[in-house]
Amino acid sequence: MGIHITGVGSCIPSHTERNKDFINHTFMSEDGSLFSSENSEIIEKFEAITGIEERRYAKSDQVTSDLAYIASEKAIVDAAIDAETLDYIIVAHNFGDIQHGCIQTEMLPSLATRVKHKLGIKNPNCVAYDVIFGCPGWVEGVIQAQAFIKAGMAKRCLVVGADTLSRIADPNDRDSMIFADGAGATIIEETEKAGGILSHCTQTYSEDEAFFLYSGKSYNTEANPSDKYIKMYGRKVYEFAISHVPQALKDCLDASGEEISSLNKVFIHQANEKMDEAIVKRFYRLYRFNQPDNVLPISIHKLGNSSVATVPTLLDLVKQEKLDGHTIQHGDVALFASVGAGMNINAFSYKF
Amino acid sequence: MGIHITGVGSCIPSHTERNKDFINHTFMSEDGSLFSSENSEIIEKFEAITGIEERRYAKSDQVTSDLAYIASEKAIVDAAIDAETLDYIIVAHNFGDIQHGCIQTEMLPSLATRVKHKLGIKNPNCVAYDVIFGCPGWVEGVIQAQAFIKAGMAKRCLVVGADTLSRIADPNDRDSMIFADGAGATIIEETEKAGGILSHCTQTYSEDEAFFLYSGKSYNTEANPSDKYIKMYGRKVYEFAISHVPQALKDCLDASGEEISSLNKVFIHQANEKMDEAIVKRFYRLYRFNQPDNVLPISIHKLGNSSVATVPTLLDLVKQEKLDGHTIQHGDVALFASVGAGMNINAFSYKF
Repeated sequence: MGIHITGVGSCIPSHTERNKDFINHTFMSEDGSLFSSENSEIIEKFEAITGIEERRYAKSDQVTSDLAYIASEKAIVDAAIDAETLDYIIVAHNFGDIQHGCIQTEMLPSLATRVKHKLGIKNPNCVAYDVIFGCPGWVEGVIQAQAFIKAGMAKRCLVVGADTLSRIADPNDRDSMIFADGAGATIIEETEKAGGILSHCTQTYSEDEAFFLYSGKSYNTEANPSDKYIKMYGRKVYEFAISHVPQALKDCLDASGEEISSLNKVFIHQANEKMDEAIVKRFYRLYRFNQPDNVLPISIHKLGNSSVATVPTLLDLVKQEKLDGHTIQHGDVALFASVGAGMNINAFSYKF
Repeated sequence: MGIHITGVGSCIPSHTERNKDFINHTFMSEDGSLFSSENSEIIEKFEAITGIEERRYAKSDQVTSDLAYIASEKAIVDAAIDAETLDYIIVAHNFGDIQHGCIQTEMLPSLATRVKHKLGIKNPNCVAYDVIFGCPGWVEGVIQAQAFIKAGMAKRCLVVGADTLSRIADPNDRDSMIFADGAGATIIEETEKAGGILSHCTQTYSEDEAFFLYSGKSYNTEANPSDKYIKMYGRKVYEFAISHVPQALKDCLDASGEEISSLNKVFIHQANEKMDEAIVKRFYRLYRFNQPDNVLPISIHKLGNSSVATVPTLLDLVKQEKLDGHTIQHGDVALFASVGAGMNINAFSYKF
């Protein structure tokens, strides 16, 4: 008996925004001043640090719940289940549905209700709610689904992560190049098989760290100061992540009873390639164990940071063998982990 | 052993907006047309249907997370616990923090993180997240806390419901008179005592009902159509609620093993006095049992509909014996129930 991911699906929007598409942006500092360097130089430096070459944006007639629905349908097909048998639909996001050209979040009704509506599920006992937990929202949704299954309140849950950060990124902020749109969905259920979720951990650091990622006005002093965009203190986020995430991963793996030598993959939130590499390097160093090749699948080069969507999308790409050299074998051990606004850190260990 | 509400607190904002304060509003139909009747007549009819005489609005320098924090502090004091021992902070809301004079939702970081930050809690293992589930969000938060406790993932949780609907109500819509601001908070934990939460039920009706409550543009055709307000098809909500909630309450009470004759109180979401009365009347009729006096505490006359905040606020008022004739005795059996956007219905039965 184990709680397994029995289906996975993702929605990778068709529109590609390349780094060179930002060449005519007017980038500003927090105080509204212009940079002395050329945009070409800014973009080159950005790519070197983050690893991001291009990212995907939703079509103008799509909103977050549309992407969530597309990913959900694929996960339901992948799991070969009847959607009417779902006990929960849990949708993690950070900004609700944002119509193209607007800045206002819509989540009345919840995105989970919108997804359930689009899926045409009639069963009223399928409970649909949204969870707001920063980028780690999808991982947290899985942990919550696991709790409902363990408590005897559910057998089968759909857990989705979806966001359209392109709609809430400040075009005058260099960080706007980080953000992307997307959705990933999974079916979580108890099966007769061994393995599945072995352990988990979650933390919220909010004393000094609460506003490392925040809603803030545009760097453009001529913009309406009431319009709030996704903002972050990138250096602080980076230092926080490399200081705290390696130990959280270790605590989670140790709680699973698996050895570091058995670990095959770390599916980690795609926030910044250098940051992810530094986290995993420090994690292995805590064990004084050499990091093997091919432990860290990376999708950020082509997909950017789509917040809650990155981890399930990464799993989908690896399962489909669409990320060079990465495969999953029966019996493989993995960590799924994330870090982001809150500041929240979470992880679960998993045996395929 | 039982899972109990060991502390409760509420934040009832100090500003009272009376019905007569709406006398100079320009009320419009959905198509922007004016009503033939005078405002005095509209207001009189409104009061007769909903029972609302006045409602509370947050001060202009307060946002939803401020109200949530105030209620939380009181609940922590009432439970006589050290806030550092909380395993979860769960904040239910529908519109995040909305600055006075703005329409945009802010929930980066989550309101739960903001509450944890304001409470000064250092413990990183206290997990803070938001749940979006329409007006039934606080009841659902309690059900989720119960799941974490049952699954062995938590011992003590703070569950808060907070919203500032005055900031998102369309002043040209008569329904704006319904909406209010407020927060209610509770400590949920396992204790040695018997009783506590006995059973629960939750449902999401989203096939035809998903958009009975929705984000929509102002009825004023001159307003910016991108600005979205809380909107509802009141008649449909009313009919939905009286059709489905009585049976859900019965299912919940039956699952508790308690008899209808043992039920002392129904703490139900304060959406509309006539609707609440009709629901409870039909609920008793399902048992062919005469509804006793004093089973239905009502706060809507003075507080309006503050969404997720109404049920915990009602409990706080009754516990403090601030609602005429309503008291709670040891051993009393109660139902806590809500209905709202989703369309979601939920309830839990409880033995004090």
